[in-house]
Amino acid sequence: MGHLSKDNKKLIARVRRLKGQLEGVERMLTSDTDCYEILQNVAACRGAFNALTRQLIHEHIEHHLIEEPTASDATRTASKEMQAIIDSFLK
Amino acid sequence: MGHLSKDNKKLIARVRRLKGQLEGVERMLTSDTDCYEILQNVAACRGAFNALTRQLIHEHIEHHLIEEPTASDATRTASKEMQAIIDSFLK
Amino acid sequence: MGHLSKDNKKLIARVRRLKGQLEGVERMLTSDTDCYEILQNVAACRGAFNALTRQLIHEHIEHHLIEEPTASDATRTASKEMQAIIDSFLK
Amino acid sequence: MGHLSKDNKKLIARVRRLKGQLEGVERMLTSDTDCYEILQNVAACRGAFNALTRQLIHEHIEHHLIEEPTASDATRTASKEMQAIIDSFLK
Repeated sequence: MGHLSKDNKKLIARVRRLKGQLEGVERMLTSDTDCYEILQNVAACRGAFNALTRQLIHEHIEHHLIEEPTASDATRTASKEMQAIIDSFLK
Repeated sequence: MGHLSKDNKKLIARVRRLKGQLEGVERMLTSDTDCYEILQNVAACRGAFNALTRQLIHEHIEHHLIEEPTASDATRTASKEMQAIIDSFLK
Repeated sequence: MGHLSKDNKKLIARVRRLKGQLEGVERMLTSDTDCYEILQNVAACRGAFNALTRQLIHEHIEHHLIEEPTASDATRTASKEMQAIIDSFLK
Repeated sequence: MGHLSKDNKKLIARVRRLKGQLEGVERMLTSDTDCYEILQNVAACRGAFNALTRQLIHEHIEHHLIEEPTASDATRTASKEMQAIIDSFLK
């Protein structure tokens, strides 16, 4: 994912944290944890998952559209608008 | 929304259909309609709403990024990828 | 929707407000409104739509499960947990 | 999660598969994988995550509401409607 090199560490940290949260859910399923508590943890995973997706799309737009050397001002503006829209839809 | 002129009619038709569906929900709420039937209609509205959003974002990308005269091939490819991604997340 | 009588007015007010927001989007589509502004308004509609759905499901659970005269304490507790879960997933 | 004992294995298998998918995303982020390919895999994770959530809520309703010995027919019907509604909203 070359272009993401500078942000990669953050993204990888997010994925690992999410994996940790899922391991927590797995442990709850194997032990006798209350169903509601599991669902609350799954809701937290969902939030983390949406945040990861949002950041990935954000950076896709950043690196492939906004930082593209030939991009016109109009392209850059429309791309930044796309980022804001994605943010509001993936909350 | 100038740039959408050719697609505007489709979008306006979608918005009107969705308004019609909401009027149906309103009528159900004022009459004695079964709660479950109302919820099924609200679920259908949600599908229509997501389809409208998807088409709007699609055309924003089409007209502002892909059809931008100065857009490089790389910009066009990344923009088409964005459309496919949005489609899969707003299903 | 019989059982919702006491809350019906609120729900109907929500549906009407949402219809008003969609009429705004329709007007923007027929006039020359900027695409990004339209998308911001569609995002606001989405918020209003999710709030409507959340309230409907909430009241379905309230009236059919929690207020059901024969409901056991266990049923009432599980139903309230369902409401909390729905709230966190339909934000 | 006592009550889920009979379905637990399926749920645990789902969580493990999802963890495996996330490990795939992590590997892609550390190697030089194309951004679009990563986003496609994240979209697949989202589908798997929604399916897991849907099944968990389904079983919460099944075991705490429908199978509750004192549940009236009305409670059972409203609970099954809830399951159907959740399914259509968490697709």
